[in-house]
Amino acid sequence: MDSMDNSIYARPVERGNYCMNNCIVAQSGGPTAVINASAMGVLEENNTSHYYDNVFAGINGIQGILNKHIVNLSIITYDEVKGLKYTPSSGLGSCRYKLKPFEKSTEEYIKLFEILEEYEIKTFFYIGGNDSQDTVHKLSVYAKKHNKDIKFIGIPKTIDNDLPIMDHTPGFGSAAKLIATQVLENFLDASVYPTKGVFILETMGRDTGWLAASACLATINGKPVADFIYLPEIAFDAEKFLRDISRKLTEKNHVFVVISEGIRTKDGKSLDETYEVTLDKFGHVQLGGICAYLKNLILSTETAEKVRVLELSTTQRCSMHCASQTDIDEAYAVGKAAAVYSIDGISGNMIGLRRLSNAPYTSEPFVLEAEKVANNIKYFPMEWINAEGNNVTHEAYEYTLPLIMGEPKLVIENGLPKYTFLEEFFKL
Amino acid sequence: MDSMDNSIYARPVERGNYCMNNCIVAQSGGPTAVINASAMGVLEENNTSHYYDNVFAGINGIQGILNKHIVNLSIITYDEVKGLKYTPSSGLGSCRYKLKPFEKSTEEYIKLFEILEEYEIKTFFYIGGNDSQDTVHKLSVYAKKHNKDIKFIGIPKTIDNDLPIMDHTPGFGSAAKLIATQVLENFLDASVYPTKGVFILETMGRDTGWLAASACLATINGKPVADFIYLPEIAFDAEKFLRDISRKLTEKNHVFVVISEGIRTKDGKSLDETYEVTLDKFGHVQLGGICAYLKNLILSTETAEKVRVLELSTTQRCSMHCASQTDIDEAYAVGKAAAVYSIDGISGNMIGLRRLSNAPYTSEPFVLEAEKVANNIKYFPMEWINAEGNNVTHEAYEYTLPLIMGEPKLVIENGLPKYTFLEEFFKL
Repeated sequence: MDSMDNSIYARPVERGNYCMNNCIVAQSGGPTAVINASAMGVLEENNTSHYYDNVFAGINGIQGILNKHIVNLSIITYDEVKGLKYTPSSGLGSCRYKLKPFEKSTEEYIKLFEILEEYEIKTFFYIGGNDSQDTVHKLSVYAKKHNKDIKFIGIPKTIDNDLPIMDHTPGFGSAAKLIATQVLENFLDASVYPTKGVFILETMGRDTGWLAASACLATINGKPVADFIYLPEIAFDAEKFLRDISRKLTEKNHVFVVISEGIRTKDGKSLDETYEVTLDKFGHVQLGGICAYLKNLILSTETAEKVRVLELSTTQRCSMHCASQTDIDEAYAVGKAAAVYSIDGISGNMIGLRRLSNAPYTSEPFVLEAEKVANNIKYFPMEWINAEGNNVTHEAYEYTLPLIMGEPKLVIENGLPKYTFLEEFFKL
Repeated sequence: MDSMDNSIYARPVERGNYCMNNCIVAQSGGPTAVINASAMGVLEENNTSHYYDNVFAGINGIQGILNKHIVNLSIITYDEVKGLKYTPSSGLGSCRYKLKPFEKSTEEYIKLFEILEEYEIKTFFYIGGNDSQDTVHKLSVYAKKHNKDIKFIGIPKTIDNDLPIMDHTPGFGSAAKLIATQVLENFLDASVYPTKGVFILETMGRDTGWLAASACLATINGKPVADFIYLPEIAFDAEKFLRDISRKLTEKNHVFVVISEGIRTKDGKSLDETYEVTLDKFGHVQLGGICAYLKNLILSTETAEKVRVLELSTTQRCSMHCASQTDIDEAYAVGKAAAVYSIDGISGNMIGLRRLSNAPYTSEPFVLEAEKVANNIKYFPMEWINAEGNNVTHEAYEYTLPLIMGEPKLVIENGLPKYTFLEEFFKL
C-alpha cells in the first residue's frame, strides 16, 4: 500500500508485545445529512473513555476495508476532523457492497478478518441501512463460529425511515425538514399566477411512504398545503389520481401534489411499465422521474393545462443547510451509544432509537439484534392514511413534527456553510 | 365587484371633494425569494413619509388590475403584512401579461387608466423583469401623450440577473446562494462511492449564464468543486463536452458539471432539437431537462457508466430558507428608493442598483430609464469565461461573492420558516 508512507494511514503505534484494542468505523449505502454525526459520536465517546487505543475509519465501507483503505482518526488532530459533525454526506466514503452468505463463499470473510486482525481491531461499527445491518449480522455469526474476538455493531442511518423495530432512523428528520420546507416554499411559488395549475413534488423513500408523508408538516395559516400525498403503501390508480386532481381544480386554482418515487400500481408495477408513453404537442417524450411521467399523464388527458414538477432527488440526503438539530443530536447519540455499549462486548447488535415522550419530545438509544433489522422493511402505517388513500392523517403530523425541530448553527464562510472534506482519505 | 363588501378591497376612505394621492404596487413575471421585500420597501417608506394616502396592491399584476383585483395595504394592520419581507415568491400574485403597443390597440390602456383614476392612483410601481419594464415604459409614454397625471416606476427583480445597465438584480443573490449551497452539498453527496461517476446540476437563467456561473462560489479546501460550468454565451458542442468529461475522468473519479438551461448549439438550437433521442438499456427514453438529456448522451456514448442529475428548477426562485440577507436588503432598498424618487414626479423610470465598492461591499439605488432595460438582455461577460469555454474566471467569483453574503434570521414555527400568505388577496 503506497499510502503507508503517509502518517494517517500506517499502523499508528510502535508495538512491543502489547496487543492493542482498536476499533473501526465505516459508512455504507446512500448518504444522509447526519451520517457523519454518528461517526463523530463513536470518535468523541472514545476521546473521553479512551477504551480503544485507536479509532480507525474504513474508507468506502467494507469494500474499502477489503482493499485496506483504512485511516487512523485518532492521530488526526481534532480540529481537522471536528467539522464532520456538521458536514452532510458520508465523509468516510460509502459503498453498495453485500457480502455473500459464508455458507456459499468464505473467501471475503477470510480476507476481511485477516485485515481486521492485522490492525488489531476488536470492534467494527457499521453505519448504514438494512443491507449494512445484514453485513453486521453475517460477520458476527461468522466471528462466533470461528472464535474470532471481533465484535460487530450496527449504527442506523437512512433518510427512508424504513428500519423496523426502532421509532425512526437518524437521517429521516433532516430529510423530512427539507421536504416540508420545499413543499412550503414551492407552494408559494406555485400560487402566484391566476391561471389554474398543478404542482407535483416527488420525494425519495423507496418502497415506503415516510418521506412523502412528511410533506404534511408544511402548513400555512393553519392548513396543510399539500392537497394530495400519494404513498407506495396504497396501490396507485391513475384514473383515481386524475379524478382527484380534476375535482380539486373545481375547488381551487392551484393543486399541490406530493408523490413518492415508490408508488406502484395494484399489480406491483411501476408507472412507466404500466401506461403507454405519450408525446407532448412537440412530439417530445416527457420522462424523467415519476413526477415527469404524471405531468405527461395530466397534460395528455387534458386534466389540467399547466403542470410543474420538482424532483427533490439527492437534495433530500445532503441538505445540512436545512437539517434538523434533533436529527443531528440523535445521529450523534446512536454513535456514542454504540461506543458505550461496545464495552459490554455485544456483537451482532444494532443501536435503535426509542421515543420516550412526545411533549416534550425525548428519545433514547437502545440495543436490538441486527438480524431483526436486516432485510426487513417498516412500512408507513395504513391507519395513518386517509380513507381516500390520497393523504395522511394527523397522527403522521404528530409523529414527524418533533423529528424536524431545531436548526443547527453552521459555521458560515463566504456566505456558504463551511464543510469538512477530508480529501486525503480518498487518495489512497 | 363582490369583494367591495370586504374592508380591504373597497375604496378605503369616505371622501368629500378632497382628491386623494394614492399609489399602487404590483408584481409581474417569475417569482424570486425577495420580490416581496421590494413591495415592503414601498409600503414601509410610505408608512414613514405618508406621502401617499393609500398604498394599494394590484393582485396578479396588470392582469389583475384590469379586473379591479385591487386591495388596500394601508388599511391592513402592519402585523398582518410585515412577514412578507421574509416570505418568498410573489405575495401579491403575478402574471405574464404583455400590453399591446398602444399604436395598435388602445382598448386596454383606456380601461387601465379608468381604473387607476377611479382609485385616484397617482403612482404605479411595477416590480418585474424586462417585460415589466416594457410595460412601465409604454404606460408612461401613453400617460404623457394623453396628459394623464399618473406616474409609472419600475422596480427590478429577476433571479436571472439579465437586466442591462444595473450592476445586478434583486433576486439574483439569493438564487446564487441557493445554487452554490446545492453545488457544495451535492458535490459531497456525489463523492461518496469509489466508482467513477458524473454529476450534472442544471440551473435556470434563460439565455444568460449568470446563475450557472454562480456555482463557482462553491469551493472546498480552497478549490472550486465544479469541474465544468457550461453557459449559454458559449455555443454548446456535445463532442467537446464528452471529451471534457472523458479527460477529467482520467484525473479523478467524480466529475461535477453545472449546466445552464439555456445552452444552445452553434446554430442556436436547443439540444433536443439537434441530437437524436436515444434509448436506455430498458428501452426508456431519458428526457426531462437539459441535464437528463446530457445524462442520456453520456450513457449512450459510454463516456461514463454512472450519471446523476439534479434540476434545481423552482427552488432557485423561492428558497428564502437559504436567501442572501444582502439580497433582501437590496430588494427592500430599491422598493424604498422607488417610493422616495416618486415624490420627485419621475415616470417611465426604473430603480437600478450600482456597486460602489467591493471590499467592503456597498451599493446604492439609482434612477434609469425603463425603456433602456425593457426587452434588452445583459449577457454574462465573455472575458469572464475561460479559454476552453467550459468554466468561469476569478472575476465571476469576485463579482458574485458579495451578493450572497448574510443569512436572514427567519421566524421559525414548528421547525419550519413562518411565512405570510395573505390568501384573502386571491379570493377576489
